[in-house]
Amino acid sequence: MIETKGYAAMKAGGPLEPFSFSRRELAPNDILVEILYCGICHSDIHQVKNEWGGATFPLVPGHEIVGRVLKGGSQAKRFAVGDAVGIGCFVDSCGTCESCREGLQQYCTGGLVWTYNSKDRDGNMTQGGYSRKIVIREDYALEIPRNLPLERVAPLLCAGITTYSPLRRFKVGKGSRVGVMGLGGLGHMAVKLASRMGADVTVLSHSPNKEADSRVLGATGFVRTNDSGGMARLSETLDVMIDTISAPHDPNLYLGLLKRDGAMVLVGVPEAPLSVHAFSLIGRRRNLTASLIGGLPETQELLDFCGREGIGADVEVISPSEVNKAYERTLSGDVRYRFVIDMRSLD
Amino acid sequence: MIETKGYAAMKAGGPLEPFSFSRRELAPNDILVEILYCGICHSDIHQVKNEWGGATFPLVPGHEIVGRVLKGGSQAKRFAVGDAVGIGCFVDSCGTCESCREGLQQYCTGGLVWTYNSKDRDGNMTQGGYSRKIVIREDYALEIPRNLPLERVAPLLCAGITTYSPLRRFKVGKGSRVGVMGLGGLGHMAVKLASRMGADVTVLSHSPNKEADSRVLGATGFVRTNDSGGMARLSETLDVMIDTISAPHDPNLYLGLLKRDGAMVLVGVPEAPLSVHAFSLIGRRRNLTASLIGGLPETQELLDFCGREGIGADVEVISPSEVNKAYERTLSGDVRYRFVIDMRSLD
Repeated sequence: MIETKGYAAMKAGGPLEPFSFSRRELAPNDILVEILYCGICHSDIHQVKNEWGGATFPLVPGHEIVGRVLKGGSQAKRFAVGDAVGIGCFVDSCGTCESCREGLQQYCTGGLVWTYNSKDRDGNMTQGGYSRKIVIREDYALEIPRNLPLERVAPLLCAGITTYSPLRRFKVGKGSRVGVMGLGGLGHMAVKLASRMGADVTVLSHSPNKEADSRVLGATGFVRTNDSGGMARLSETLDVMIDTISAPHDPNLYLGLLKRDGAMVLVGVPEAPLSVHAFSLIGRRRNLTASLIGGLPETQELLDFCGREGIGADVEVISPSEVNKAYERTLSGDVRYRFVIDMRSLD
Repeated sequence: MIETKGYAAMKAGGPLEPFSFSRRELAPNDILVEILYCGICHSDIHQVKNEWGGATFPLVPGHEIVGRVLKGGSQAKRFAVGDAVGIGCFVDSCGTCESCREGLQQYCTGGLVWTYNSKDRDGNMTQGGYSRKIVIREDYALEIPRNLPLERVAPLLCAGITTYSPLRRFKVGKGSRVGVMGLGGLGHMAVKLASRMGADVTVLSHSPNKEADSRVLGATGFVRTNDSGGMARLSETLDVMIDTISAPHDPNLYLGLLKRDGAMVLVGVPEAPLSVHAFSLIGRRRNLTASLIGGLPETQELLDFCGREGIGADVEVISPSEVNKAYERTLSGDVRYRFVIDMRSLD
């Protein structure tokens, strides 16, 4: 076994604390990765608090991982020692179901293995990226663009692909009008990506002090959601809306901003159900849908796109010992726009 | 003015009663149509009761109209006197907005004129098909297949196109798995059309006595919605669901039956909002959408399809004086599957 250190929650809701554990020995197609940076995703906090149910402890969160290859298994050949690699929300899948065959591993029906809090093939629970080393099948690691600071790449593995995938699915490009609901970790990536794809982006936020940031990130429009006049002017003008709002909200207010055949895509998971009026959809044949991260090919496509366009997340780098405070600040929206843990100080 | 007779509600919720009124004189591109049959649509009842608001009285309902051309205006040339024509839910539109230019007149943003209870270009309120004569711009009338009994064609103009359009939008054909929620006027058309398109159709109904009919209409599967085992067996198997249920229902129960990327299409308009859990959509990237009748080209395509395939609605033909009783029976689900009024007896 390969010993490593990390930060774990020892019980539901408990603080994260230093934790020593082991990774499996390398199988022939595995690589051993030294983790350099790991982003803090809102779903890490949900899992630590067991708000979705099913969490097992000790739990090492983290699925926005960037590191370097320390060693390859006997048949591993994709990466050289020292190569930078990315690891996202899953580390294995069945490889044979329809979704896997289509490269949409995130929808695997044959046994997706999440990066943490998930039963691995050997029966052990996976542990995530708030740690110093990780072992992964090389096919599930991603190539990292060479020109970007690695700490700014980490959040692309979840926040980035989560917003990129629906923008691609709805063919966002020059001439598209995109609304981004909420400007947090996901929202700020949606603005960067959609604007760089050529779209005209409007941010919808309850917080007027996000307007200046929105412009810097690439948005051309900003509407406070309680500004009924601004909302009315936006009526029936948008092609796609990316809904990153996790707080309860009235989807009908936003659906009315979509053109005919427009789509509102949930990428956050509000705990409360959304109350949708049929009239909000039918009069303009609108769509309400959702999107779950992305498959390996699309995640690689995103990373390549970000490399070409020079897009990284806006991050605040912290040390592992600051993680509990970072959770509090994430919950109060006090981060622009993603905390990334520098794991190197864990040695 | 052209005098005609019909049946109108004189006040909200009031019974329908004999009513004499006039149609406009023929403009150059108009045709005068002798109405032979008119279907009774659930939305007629909503409007008579003013349940959607905005109804004006006297109100002559009816938008599933089949008739014969009595006369053409000076420049009308599409039809000969005596030709059978169909008239659906709208009788005019702006012709210049993006939706009109795409042949999706039902989503016209420049002033759609509904067949009844709508302000016409001359400022008068339109009156519908529960009447003996109607005047319409010839471009908004449809050609009727010659091989079908006209009374069975009438419901195609609303119930038919309402279900045909989403089946086409989601490319239903051989190999598709379609669920039809509710077996009434809309549902029975959805079963007929989807099965004739080559799909494998399952009816979902609370009423076990609809099973035999489902098979006759073309369904291969039938599941009672309170049969949890049957519902579980259907989990993640359907490509498209046509939701015709107007009573309150839990969409999450049904969304779980869709495969990845599947779509549930609302074609009825439940009064209560639907309570949608994000988890019902996100895990399989499902879509909730709605559909509003169809444009002129697609309605003609439907009529041609029904002519080729020999598809008509299952109807119960009544006389105009039976319309109030038919409303009661429609509300209690006591019709297999559409009432059609024979307007000829109105003379």
